[in-house]
Amino acid sequence: MTQGIELLALDGIPEVSPGDDLAALICAAAAAQGIGLTDDDVVVVTQKIVSKAEGRVVDLATVDPSAFARQVGERWGKDPRQIELVLRESTDLVRMGPGGLIISRTRHGFVCANAGVDLSNVGGADSATLLPVDPDTSALELRDGVRRISGAAPAVILSDSFGRPWRNGIVDVALGAAGLEVLIDLRGQPDADGREMHSTVIAVADELASAADLAAGKTSHCPVVVIRGYRYAPGAGRAAALVMDAERDLFR
Amino acid sequence: MTQGIELLALDGIPEVSPGDDLAALICAAAAAQGIGLTDDDVVVVTQKIVSKAEGRVVDLATVDPSAFARQVGERWGKDPRQIELVLRESTDLVRMGPGGLIISRTRHGFVCANAGVDLSNVGGADSATLLPVDPDTSALELRDGVRRISGAAPAVILSDSFGRPWRNGIVDVALGAAGLEVLIDLRGQPDADGREMHSTVIAVADELASAADLAAGKTSHCPVVVIRGYRYAPGAGRAAALVMDAERDLFR
Repeated sequence: MTQGIELLALDGIPEVSPGDDLAALICAAAAAQGIGLTDDDVVVVTQKIVSKAEGRVVDLATVDPSAFARQVGERWGKDPRQIELVLRESTDLVRMGPGGLIISRTRHGFVCANAGVDLSNVGGADSATLLPVDPDTSALELRDGVRRISGAAPAVILSDSFGRPWRNGIVDVALGAAGLEVLIDLRGQPDADGREMHSTVIAVADELASAADLAAGKTSHCPVVVIRGYRYAPGAGRAAALVMDAERDLFR
Repeated sequence: MTQGIELLALDGIPEVSPGDDLAALICAAAAAQGIGLTDDDVVVVTQKIVSKAEGRVVDLATVDPSAFARQVGERWGKDPRQIELVLRESTDLVRMGPGGLIISRTRHGFVCANAGVDLSNVGGADSATLLPVDPDTSALELRDGVRRISGAAPAVILSDSFGRPWRNGIVDVALGAAGLEVLIDLRGQPDADGREMHSTVIAVADELASAADLAAGKTSHCPVVVIRGYRYAPGAGRAAALVMDAERDLFR
């Protein structure tokens, strides 16, 4: 039987709080499940626990919404303090839609709903988690942490759920990456017909994030998934490279 | 150790020609690899071999390009007959970009590059494959075929590679589906914080397609991947449900 790719959810990750050592939590959960991490694995971690560990949590009581945020909040029955945070995290508003949905470009260049600002309840207080300041660096640090503890240096991907224009539903994509090439460029290589593949650059980091989400489930909270048996291309890829340059982007 | 999800590429699928019984080819390849298909599997099949089996192949010599297609072809050094086919397969042009790239809406409602028209070489003649007329029906027929031959009725997904606005690289998405719900609606269910998840509808069919692409590789041509161990929601889902309604679509 073929050697396939395995998607293994780690279930022992506790609720994460600011300052927690996420690498240690991941290594402990993997060990408890008998999963000895190796250099060949890809560890996919959901953004939210990274944001929490990094203290990217804002107590909503401390947020003073602008007049515009109040206006949008009142119109749609949304918390104006959340709107305010979304605006602060954005460099560009791309669309505003019914329900107070804001699609914007974040400082990282990602275009997503609500700039990744997620309402949360941390220690009984209404708060919001923000995206990590630099998700690629977060991934790199996580990878270094895992290496220090376990000796193994798997590739690491930070994932988040994004909507897409024209298609219903969200899918997980890569927000940060370390240790692997995020794009696989097959241009110039022959396809099955011997014809050159002109436009085949595959966003493997996004596909890895989506695959991991299948194993993670959404309500059973497994925020970390180990992908085993996928032969990734080792490299210093950064998820920032997934952001399309303005001059190539037909949708700016 | 956790029971994970497995992604198993089938490698015995031969070059497919119009009229071939794809279900039989898939069952034979699975059997040869010792993979006994079950109702619990998801079989992901790349669109191109489905199009070929269904005879959605056009000999470019038979295509008479319009004046517009000639103009676009001349401007960008592209075959005007391919441009002509792209226009014929489109209901709406969404963007035209450098290199003669056309992003359009297909009759199915999908927004993608070149309306899914793919240059190909079938039997030595320059030809193009078009998307299946009704990919959901193609998936359903494939599922019925597999059931007739093997007795098992796995879920079936037809996949294709789509680009995305704002992000580099392509990822595989679901073009057709049979036997499973393509969207998992978690709205109203509590998340880890006990907070209602307001906007969580997951496009699992797209995530399954992306996951399969990791196992398929691109140059090693494994056009069929079996996903094992993913507990899909059985149902009469159709990939057509992944197309966003015009009134909800902020990007029309």
